[in-house]
Amino acid sequence: MPMTLFYAPRSPFAAKVRVCLAEMAGAKDEVEEVPADPWTDETLRALNPLCKVPTLRLDAAAGGGNLYGSSVIVQYLDARFDGKLVPTEGPTRWDALRREALGDGLAEAVIRRFVEGLDPDNARRDKVIARQEAAITAVLDHLDAEAAWTESALDLGAVAVGTALRYLTGRSPEITWQAERPRLAGWFGRFITRPSVATLGY
Amino acid sequence: MPMTLFYAPRSPFAAKVRVCLAEMAGAKDEVEEVPADPWTDETLRALNPLCKVPTLRLDAAAGGGNLYGSSVIVQYLDARFDGKLVPTEGPTRWDALRREALGDGLAEAVIRRFVEGLDPDNARRDKVIARQEAAITAVLDHLDAEAAWTESALDLGAVAVGTALRYLTGRSPEITWQAERPRLAGWFGRFITRPSVATLGY
Repeated sequence: MPMTLFYAPRSPFAAKVRVCLAEMAGAKDEVEEVPADPWTDETLRALNPLCKVPTLRLDAAAGGGNLYGSSVIVQYLDARFDGKLVPTEGPTRWDALRREALGDGLAEAVIRRFVEGLDPDNARRDKVIARQEAAITAVLDHLDAEAAWTESALDLGAVAVGTALRYLTGRSPEITWQAERPRLAGWFGRFITRPSVATLGY
Repeated sequence: MPMTLFYAPRSPFAAKVRVCLAEMAGAKDEVEEVPADPWTDETLRALNPLCKVPTLRLDAAAGGGNLYGSSVIVQYLDARFDGKLVPTEGPTRWDALRREALGDGLAEAVIRRFVEGLDPDNARRDKVIARQEAAITAVLDHLDAEAAWTESALDLGAVAVGTALRYLTGRSPEITWQAERPRLAGWFGRFITRPSVATLGY
């Protein structure tokens, strides 16, 4: 039995894992991708007490157990399939993981901003929304200003940034970030044409 | 100049890093710990666009840059100081990172439950609170049922669990989890007497 990756079609964290998986030669044949709604499907909880996606059900070759947390899942698959997306040591490792933190933080801020917007107005809500918008702006500016990374080979950090930008663009189209950040926008325009991304669906 | 770790006294993620740091022989002399309030202190944003704690300002020996995300910071410090808290490969690595995900998820659920409780009642809020409480219960049950890990040497996963339990107990004392989970409670009782934990303060 192959491994199984449970994902929600809209989750940027699940999208990060799915893109990484598709970028690893030979890995996709070993992992079945199954959509799941962690808000309504309690069967996931047997694999992951948090009942969240992405969750990876391992196979016998892995010695049992399941993995959750998008970063851990990618690191596991990368080690197992020699994916070359997660450097194992040295400055390139910390650079990839730093940029992953930016991508994850961006996605998280977009989610929080959206969810807070669903609730009645109040002072706490306004403060949370302002904080998320400050983070979104600062991350986008930082990624554009330090754009040397866009010339390097794809790594986990770049995938995290790309899938977060894709989520931002779909979830919050009123945030028009591209014109003022041409280097980041140019990279993103190329990123979404990669087969690993273009075939994600929604 | 030594490295600087910015932390918020109440943050369970910052506590995780601080405990790990104190458990690494010789590491504490190389890292100055500085309290910061990421909601009011914008100076952090120059180091971390997300303006969050924990953030680690690196020294010249690291070749510049800063790190953020509690897991990445611990992995960096562990590699640099040979901390032995994060196995670099094999089943022990994935086991530690799986348990870290449980600890982080527990802390996140306690935070979300608390924050939602600050807002006016509505259907979305009730659903979010119920989901967080289901996660808290399931994680605690899982950690107690699979308690073999409590007999092993301390690793990143155990520290994440311990600091999350400490946060749960301080933030949500109305959740009385210990009596029904004697193995987890026994381990936690020992964990909080470790000097690395007992000296954390609030």
